[in-house]
Amino acid sequence: MSAVSSEPTTPAAPARGADADLYTEVQHFYARQMQLLDARSCAEWAGTFTEDGVFAANGLPAPAEGRTAIETAARAAQDRLAAEGLVHRHWLGMVTVDRADDGTVRARSYALVIQVPLGGVPALHRSTVCEDTLVRGEDGSLLVRDRRVTRDDLA
Amino acid sequence: MSAVSSEPTTPAAPARGADADLYTEVQHFYARQMQLLDARSCAEWAGTFTEDGVFAANGLPAPAEGRTAIETAARAAQDRLAAEGLVHRHWLGMVTVDRADDGTVRARSYALVIQVPLGGVPALHRSTVCEDTLVRGEDGSLLVRDRRVTRDDLA
Amino acid sequence: MSAVSSEPTTPAAPARGADADLYTEVQHFYARQMQLLDARSCAEWAGTFTEDGVFAANGLPAPAEGRTAIETAARAAQDRLAAEGLVHRHWLGMVTVDRADDGTVRARSYALVIQVPLGGVPALHRSTVCEDTLVRGEDGSLLVRDRRVTRDDLA
Repeated sequence: MSAVSSEPTTPAAPARGADADLYTEVQHFYARQMQLLDARSCAEWAGTFTEDGVFAANGLPAPAEGRTAIETAARAAQDRLAAEGLVHRHWLGMVTVDRADDGTVRARSYALVIQVPLGGVPALHRSTVCEDTLVRGEDGSLLVRDRRVTRDDLA
Repeated sequence: MSAVSSEPTTPAAPARGADADLYTEVQHFYARQMQLLDARSCAEWAGTFTEDGVFAANGLPAPAEGRTAIETAARAAQDRLAAEGLVHRHWLGMVTVDRADDGTVRARSYALVIQVPLGGVPALHRSTVCEDTLVRGEDGSLLVRDRRVTRDDLA
Repeated sequence: MSAVSSEPTTPAAPARGADADLYTEVQHFYARQMQLLDARSCAEWAGTFTEDGVFAANGLPAPAEGRTAIETAARAAQDRLAAEGLVHRHWLGMVTVDRADDGTVRARSYALVIQVPLGGVPALHRSTVCEDTLVRGEDGSLLVRDRRVTRDDLA
């Protein structure tokens, strides 16, 4: 699990802080992305990654590689939640955004999963750190090329 | 309760993503609005809605329509909290912002209510989705014309 | 503890709302600052305050005054957490930003502390209000000159 780290690390390329517009764009991107996942729009969720995008997490046995694998993993998780009568809400916050010299955008954020049982009381389910490498798609919009999620309880 | 939906729906008018400045303005608007409510500034809170603004929620028996009704409902809720020695903090996050063709701004966000008993430990009280139609007031500032809040535990 | 207040107060100098770029800059500043603290980068954390910066909280016996005191207090807190196998994540949100006539920036936000035991489940630990006076350092970046943190459970 050496590729997954919960604390700031020296990036491969030096990074410079993002300007205000890029910072806001990343915030908006994450908001849309989390809403897609929680709405069970799994294909659209997978479409926010590059075709060869990687989703790795220290809470998962292996990374999901490519949009198909990412969509399949999301659908399996959402089906499980639906069967158990649970709603998940993913909140990202405290995001830092830097431009790397290789032209990618590096974003590091905290991510919470809030779990709500139908008829019940919401609770914090997971607290994680999310480290993303973001790139531009053909239409100029942001896409995740690489995501590393580290659960704080496993760190 | 058919007007209240917890998942993304096709808006009446096609929507385009907001530019960075509008996105930031909406974030700032929500921060001020939530601080007003939690500070028990109920008249100022109601003033962030249009005169004929509507506040509808699937956790409420009926929508509050107009500033007076919105203020009265907020004051009743705050009085109840004060009597019970509870503090509420409203957090909005994961907001998406789109411009609709009718000139309004559509914002969809997650909203949490955090409840803190005096002398006690904070807890998640509610997890909701908040769907707003925002318009400009006479001085150019944003106002809520229509708000639909959907509790995740009732969805 | 009269200097610590949990509700909006009239600032010493009238305040005007921040423009979008400043608002975004403050958000980004807070994200970096919280990540530094939670990553146990206590010297870098202290470096986000002015040399004579003050950190006051109604949950602390006395304010920490100056970078050395702020660093020492952070390190003591982090050492305690490490000894107990706990991770803390500080989330700021619902921030309002105003420019005061004295040239400072006044920011008021909600701040949560999320506590995660290794091998356990995350929980809300504290809900607070954070009132900052921000100034520019020599290189133009934001620094905290004065911070007042009010725990909601003690208000």
